[in-house]
Amino acid sequence: MRVLGVDPGLTRMGIGLVDGRLGAPLKMVAAGVIRTPVGAPIHERLLGIDVQIAEWFDEYEPDAVAVERMFAQEGVRTIMGTAQAAGVAMVAAARRGLPVALHTPSEVKAAVSGDGRAQKEQVAAMVVRILKLSEAPKPVDATDALALAICHVWRGGAADRIAEALEKRGLSAPSGSVPLHRVRGRGRGSGFR
Amino acid sequence: MRVLGVDPGLTRMGIGLVDGRLGAPLKMVAAGVIRTPVGAPIHERLLGIDVQIAEWFDEYEPDAVAVERMFAQEGVRTIMGTAQAAGVAMVAAARRGLPVALHTPSEVKAAVSGDGRAQKEQVAAMVVRILKLSEAPKPVDATDALALAICHVWRGGAADRIAEALEKRGLSAPSGSVPLHRVRGRGRGSGFR
Repeated sequence: MRVLGVDPGLTRMGIGLVDGRLGAPLKMVAAGVIRTPVGAPIHERLLGIDVQIAEWFDEYEPDAVAVERMFAQEGVRTIMGTAQAAGVAMVAAARRGLPVALHTPSEVKAAVSGDGRAQKEQVAAMVVRILKLSEAPKPVDATDALALAICHVWRGGAADRIAEALEKRGLSAPSGSVPLHRVRGRGRGSGFR
Repeated sequence: MRVLGVDPGLTRMGIGLVDGRLGAPLKMVAAGVIRTPVGAPIHERLLGIDVQIAEWFDEYEPDAVAVERMFAQEGVRTIMGTAQAAGVAMVAAARRGLPVALHTPSEVKAAVSGDGRAQKEQVAAMVVRILKLSEAPKPVDATDALALAICHVWRGGAADRIAEALEKRGLSAPSGSVPLHRVRGRGRGSGFR
């Protein structure tokens, strides 16, 4: 499974691609950021994201997309721009028929580092370790996007296993009844502490 | 000039199309709402808006798009969904190379009724009067979108006249220096009180 992680933002949007599945080493495919000019009108910035994310999709053909689920703790202006940037990424994925999952920052931290309150540096260090990189991709948005993708592989794997177990018992998970972002498993992160 | 007004929302997004220019009667071209199912995942709802708004653009070929500028006064969940719906509309316009302007609710109220604090019913009554309709289009989101389009014609006209005046004096407005949504004129609304 190839997952494209998105750390949404209007000025810098982190993109991280990971190949992998549960129980096997994960591999970084690519990571980077989509930038749009701060002074430009909002609709042009959103179009810039739309155009650039299409290039990522076309080049790397992910199987699933994981986007950070936001809460309005930051400033109102920031959160609206960030929400809109995330929306553009979600529509881009939906247009291609790709599944989209949202993960909260604490879910990502817990999955990657075993600690839902981990510091940024701790998460970056774990991303480097999990993906066997020589250093954390810069800027940090790219590393955060990789963490999202890792989280999605591990949590997605958990959801798949639930579906599998139900199937073995002759039951089936009604479609949509176990959305990835509601699965409460901790992923595999704690094994890395 | 044909303006497509957008009253953004995830569950109901008002769309109102108006033909007109400053100093001439305005005409309603069409009005309605884009709906998406409340229970569906956010990315599917945003895709639904993306697909449906494309149909409005294709059928009516507007020259400009006016979107309500939001403030985070409502609940956080609502504002994020609304912001994302607005973002999808803006990208759809930008993709077609159309100018996009944002107008605040009080700008719209002032332009249409002469009173920035007008009640919903007052605005609806003015929309009916300005566009010579027999009644206000339902649901109210459609009427609000028409008010946005009216506001844009009148305020856009003001911006055009500034550019014209500058040109007559041998000056030119540097591109982007007089964005429509920053023009502080009251439009023509007060003449209708």
